[in-house]
Amino acid sequence: MCQLLGMNCNVPTDIVFSFTGFHHRGGRTDHHADGWGIAFFEGAGCRVFLDPEPAVQSPIAQLVRNYPIRSMNVIAHIRKATHGRVALENTHPFMRELWGRYWIFAHNGELKDYRPLPRGPHRPVGDTDSERAFCDLMGHLAGAFGDTAPPEPELADAVRDWAAGVTPHGSFNFLLSNGEWLFAQCSTQLAYIERCAPFTTAHLVDEDVTVDFSQVTTPHDRVAVIATLPLTDDERWTTMAPGEFAVFRDGRRVER
Amino acid sequence: MCQLLGMNCNVPTDIVFSFTGFHHRGGRTDHHADGWGIAFFEGAGCRVFLDPEPAVQSPIAQLVRNYPIRSMNVIAHIRKATHGRVALENTHPFMRELWGRYWIFAHNGELKDYRPLPRGPHRPVGDTDSERAFCDLMGHLAGAFGDTAPPEPELADAVRDWAAGVTPHGSFNFLLSNGEWLFAQCSTQLAYIERCAPFTTAHLVDEDVTVDFSQVTTPHDRVAVIATLPLTDDERWTTMAPGEFAVFRDGRRVER
Repeated sequence: MCQLLGMNCNVPTDIVFSFTGFHHRGGRTDHHADGWGIAFFEGAGCRVFLDPEPAVQSPIAQLVRNYPIRSMNVIAHIRKATHGRVALENTHPFMRELWGRYWIFAHNGELKDYRPLPRGPHRPVGDTDSERAFCDLMGHLAGAFGDTAPPEPELADAVRDWAAGVTPHGSFNFLLSNGEWLFAQCSTQLAYIERCAPFTTAHLVDEDVTVDFSQVTTPHDRVAVIATLPLTDDERWTTMAPGEFAVFRDGRRVER
Repeated sequence: MCQLLGMNCNVPTDIVFSFTGFHHRGGRTDHHADGWGIAFFEGAGCRVFLDPEPAVQSPIAQLVRNYPIRSMNVIAHIRKATHGRVALENTHPFMRELWGRYWIFAHNGELKDYRPLPRGPHRPVGDTDSERAFCDLMGHLAGAFGDTAPPEPELADAVRDWAAGVTPHGSFNFLLSNGEWLFAQCSTQLAYIERCAPFTTAHLVDEDVTVDFSQVTTPHDRVAVIATLPLTDDERWTTMAPGEFAVFRDGRRVER
């Protein structure tokens, strides 16, 4: 099984602490050694770092740990190959452009007998079920809303309904972001935490590292972190239920 | 003016030597300090490293210099902002997907009064004339050839003819690749070199570094390097003429 990590904030925030624990799951504390990737939105732009090598050995992971890129929306993924060989083109997260914005998608799980007919202009480059689903979603949204992005409630409903249609094909946990909203679909396993003032300390599960968030935040900061499994062992994470769909903006889950 | 660098090879080759000289043009030996980027095709996959910071100060440039990614098609760009502010979304090279392949584009020059009507599904995310042109090209190709990529001669002719239509708007030097072919359009300034056996030594213009290519190649290797200005001072570069369009594959210019 792959591992997902997402972050959604109300101010640009670095993900060094969470990534420090997360990247050990790529070959050291877990068996996901078939590549990894991370995408950082910065304004309308997006940087995607991909490496088909295990995260724990990756010089690019080293860079990400040491170079604090500040972002309001981050999606990371460590891969355990199921569909599709270990190759750069099969490494998550995937990026496409729609409505003049970049979209980032990463999937944990496996889809069986999932062969959607091509619709819209987006085509997979690699041969994973995940990229196929992402391209289908882009085509579905383009077909449903035409040339212009809808308001968020309609967008979220469209993504949620589309996800419900794919889920019967297998396990389909995913994170999706357009740089403003972060959408999280739990099919089997996903948890999140919303951090806000008063900030305290937190200790990683995967490495003996503690951070005191009160030293690196302001009272107005809000940060939501979403992961396959909780990254810290002394905070209260919310476990999502199978079939649950969540929307995050400005560091908090949007109630609907 | 921005600086372009491209490499096209018949075997995966690292670009460390050329990039070592090139990246000094981002703030040290030249004035292009408004960000930089580099894209490496590896099979069907593509890695794009972008940094809105000057290349000479960039930890990501440090990584690229020290981590020899082997690629058969590379495009790099150092930016001097003309249209569009200094921001990640305006940093070249740009990437889009068409026909199930990634396409990479970088532009040196400036287009005036260039406002093509949107055609096809691709939209710019930032506000540069360069990304606008790239999206127009993607839409033009999708419109001309439909759902399937044409053979290379038709593709090259379509890109060349499209470029000829844009060039009257200003200076329009660009590099474009789909991971197999590298297309180079010279509007004002572009030079290239084709290296093959017997390999010899070469010395950089921008830094006192010499490499002996015979130590790092096999007799069958072919490497074409394309740049705004020659990167070495002891090799014979071919200067392209204004209006000249070149196609490279497997490390050599394709005669047409």
